[in-house]
Amino acid sequence: MQLVAIGTVRSPLTDRASAPKQGDEGAPEAAIVLAEDVAAGLEGVEAGDELIVLTWLDRASRDVLRVRPRDDPDRPPRGVFATRSPDRPNPIGLHRVRVVAVEGLRVRVRDLEALDGTPVVDLKPVLRSVGER
Amino acid sequence: MQLVAIGTVRSPLTDRASAPKQGDEGAPEAAIVLAEDVAAGLEGVEAGDELIVLTWLDRASRDVLRVRPRDDPDRPPRGVFATRSPDRPNPIGLHRVRVVAVEGLRVRVRDLEALDGTPVVDLKPVLRSVGER
Repeated sequence: MQLVAIGTVRSPLTDRASAPKQGDEGAPEAAIVLAEDVAAGLEGVEAGDELIVLTWLDRASRDVLRVRPRDDPDRPPRGVFATRSPDRPNPIGLHRVRVVAVEGLRVRVRDLEALDGTPVVDLKPVLRSVGER
Repeated sequence: MQLVAIGTVRSPLTDRASAPKQGDEGAPEAAIVLAEDVAAGLEGVEAGDELIVLTWLDRASRDVLRVRPRDDPDRPPRGVFATRSPDRPNPIGLHRVRVVAVEGLRVRVRDLEALDGTPVVDLKPVLRSVGER
């Protein structure tokens, strides 16, 4: 199960400590720059669309199974599958964003909290009727 | 970017043609059987929780960049990133499910439309405030 990068995040966010935990906590506008060989996959993606962006959180730790909540360190640790910690066996990031503009291979987006240089592995439309109500 | 299976889908659904496209279109109850070495990651996951399950759609085609809508084959093809087609460069499935019960390594769930034997690569809680409103 080998992932290929379909693109890369370009963002003013450059380190994990200063990044907001979720996109609507104040992430600056960012871009996803698609790889040329998958450009055809972008046909039909338009300004105003909501997308789920899947990223590979390449700065996460993969051997962590329990984490202490960052916002309340007095609470007991929880299993990573009960949290959104980037540290987990497969550090796939899930980000819901709004497309601002599609400019060739460059997709400008709002509310993407991923760090600059993060590999992107998939884009999916948000479904209105199911999945992400 | 190498994924590891953290578990496997156990479901009465065994072939793609008969599977519903989305979980709330009538998927039977299914289970996710966790790998023993990641069992600690499940602590805090409970009956009633809503989870995002990420799977590896191992029967999908990875060299497809444009698809014709299955429900309306007269429409022109679209880029896979504008669709939820399982055929895409990284065939990661995104499923929103409800936990029915956690029984040791077995997580029984509702609304999982993945096929029996599909590798599971991540579980994440649905966030109320962001991401999956």
